[in-house]
Amino acid sequence: MKKVRLLGISGSLRKASHNSAILRTLKERIPQNVELELLPLDDLPLYNSDLEAPQLPTAVEAFKSAVSAADGLVICSPEYNAGTSGVLKNALDWASRPGNAAPLKGKPVLLMSCSPGFTGGMRAHAQLRETLASTLSRVLVHPPVVIASVHDKIKDGRLVDEANLQFALNAVAALVEEVRLTNAPSQ
Amino acid sequence: MKKVRLLGISGSLRKASHNSAILRTLKERIPQNVELELLPLDDLPLYNSDLEAPQLPTAVEAFKSAVSAADGLVICSPEYNAGTSGVLKNALDWASRPGNAAPLKGKPVLLMSCSPGFTGGMRAHAQLRETLASTLSRVLVHPPVVIASVHDKIKDGRLVDEANLQFALNAVAALVEEVRLTNAPSQ
Amino acid sequence: MKKVRLLGISGSLRKASHNSAILRTLKERIPQNVELELLPLDDLPLYNSDLEAPQLPTAVEAFKSAVSAADGLVICSPEYNAGTSGVLKNALDWASRPGNAAPLKGKPVLLMSCSPGFTGGMRAHAQLRETLASTLSRVLVHPPVVIASVHDKIKDGRLVDEANLQFALNAVAALVEEVRLTNAPSQ
Amino acid sequence: MKKVRLLGISGSLRKASHNSAILRTLKERIPQNVELELLPLDDLPLYNSDLEAPQLPTAVEAFKSAVSAADGLVICSPEYNAGTSGVLKNALDWASRPGNAAPLKGKPVLLMSCSPGFTGGMRAHAQLRETLASTLSRVLVHPPVVIASVHDKIKDGRLVDEANLQFALNAVAALVEEVRLTNAPSQ
Repeated sequence: MKKVRLLGISGSLRKASHNSAILRTLKERIPQNVELELLPLDDLPLYNSDLEAPQLPTAVEAFKSAVSAADGLVICSPEYNAGTSGVLKNALDWASRPGNAAPLKGKPVLLMSCSPGFTGGMRAHAQLRETLASTLSRVLVHPPVVIASVHDKIKDGRLVDEANLQFALNAVAALVEEVRLTNAPSQ
Repeated sequence: MKKVRLLGISGSLRKASHNSAILRTLKERIPQNVELELLPLDDLPLYNSDLEAPQLPTAVEAFKSAVSAADGLVICSPEYNAGTSGVLKNALDWASRPGNAAPLKGKPVLLMSCSPGFTGGMRAHAQLRETLASTLSRVLVHPPVVIASVHDKIKDGRLVDEANLQFALNAVAALVEEVRLTNAPSQ
Repeated sequence: MKKVRLLGISGSLRKASHNSAILRTLKERIPQNVELELLPLDDLPLYNSDLEAPQLPTAVEAFKSAVSAADGLVICSPEYNAGTSGVLKNALDWASRPGNAAPLKGKPVLLMSCSPGFTGGMRAHAQLRETLASTLSRVLVHPPVVIASVHDKIKDGRLVDEANLQFALNAVAALVEEVRLTNAPSQ
Repeated sequence: MKKVRLLGISGSLRKASHNSAILRTLKERIPQNVELELLPLDDLPLYNSDLEAPQLPTAVEAFKSAVSAADGLVICSPEYNAGTSGVLKNALDWASRPGNAAPLKGKPVLLMSCSPGFTGGMRAHAQLRETLASTLSRVLVHPPVVIASVHDKIKDGRLVDEANLQFALNAVAALVEEVRLTNAPSQ
């Protein structure tokens, strides 16, 4: 079976980010025929359509190419102020352009969130789902991956809560299956 | 009566931004005892809590101080991908910190949106309202200021549709009244 | 090709409902091998889990059976107070039960909205999308069908704006295609 | 000081409703000069504008009068399918009419939610806030009252978790203060 290449996007930039730690853990635990590349958003400028011509900033070009090349996205978002981070929304704004030929269009996406609070970043999902729906991405239909009290579940930069990890791995497996269905030659 | 000082925040960075044009027009048309300063978000870095210590980036410091000093905010947001811009959310993320003593806490805010589409950026309001509610800002209770087909209503960098302009000016007047009530010494 | 059976659900109960008129028009204009049955929500009681045992109210039983039997749903929602109608949410609450074996689970759904206002009921979509995502329905990935100023586009109980009608018919065609893909034996 | 009269609205109808139990507990524990009447929504018909003339259904008339007469509302909502209940939205739809002279207009409102899940019904807040904003109600600016794992915190029809109860009581006290400010003759 052809290798499935996923792109992992963390919505938080700090070095000790829980979101990045979760993606790193998934990268190490996914099956052999799946690849999960992590792409940090640190170098993206704030979205400004004046910068789209004559030439995209290098970091934007690299980000959009990585999204285009990926078979699917695994997004892990913090919850800042009842929504996703401006950092992540800004990245999606870049990748949503141009409307009719955007890297996000038709892209299978798995949404995950985590938070130190007891609601686990649940409110970030609605915003991300609505934004991704409007870019015509294909958000995976799946029970939400929401990791609460995340600060207690990360050790040495890895997610160590096995129940949460297994649930997230199952969601990634469902994304891989969706990618395979979507890319199947007969369709 | 004491002068009321408002801070205008445009959620779009491009030079010919409709949102900035609307704020510029309001600045010229508001009553004499009200001031509306416009503060562009261009220089804000992406939010990263690692940058909050030992010293905030200069642009963040300036932005947070301006929000703190203002009697109220007038936010004009584009709609990118069914929500507010990552640019604006990123600015609010900075101004929401630290949780208990954030510049946004208790701040009166007027929300406006515009868009070239027929829905006028209406979907940006829900996200902004939810985010501002979670920062304990005081979003003005007012019929929404939503300017559709905005590209037809801006000429030479000014909002020239009188009906829309008057509606927005009335909303600013309501914000000023709210600021005066909130700041009244007897309370 | 096997006939595809769709269920049309209008979120508004009044006799002259624009939402019902749109569904009625679609029913008359869809291709021959597609069927669109309209099921009014008038007789559903308010959701109350005490009524789920020992026996469902007749109208609830009929509604849930119709959703289960349908190959896909075409929902047309008004916008009441920045969201979908309580009427429609109440129906979805019934059809979401029991969690693991609900009629809505896995069901392909096309979302449409209309409104006399200029924003066309756009804000109903986010609520419906989030609710349907949580029931694991498969909301069609498609540009939103949003019919603004609908009172000017309905005559004699039929949608007579050809541009809007054609857009809605294309969306129904996309739903039918999705149903066929999803139900294909090889998958 | 004049007595403040609050109306408590539970978004769930079942007899053993957690939401109703929370409101009942608050009723018993609020200060003496505050009254909290509970008004069940069982008898409201589904919203249908055909029923608004020539005469409102009796239950609707009673509900709208109670909302009008109250100094403020205390809403406790379950989370059904990532939103508030259709039952509660339906009640708000009735009370939002007619647009310019609706019982909800200008009404101070405290939002609370509870749920057996770990996210405590947090997602019901965004929908209710947006709906109430569009009716020009005055939703209290306050950290959200969100009671998770509620089935473990109710005994004999009363909320027995003291931390949650105290937090909710403080929020009611803030609502009472807001009511007093809003109704103050000098304003």
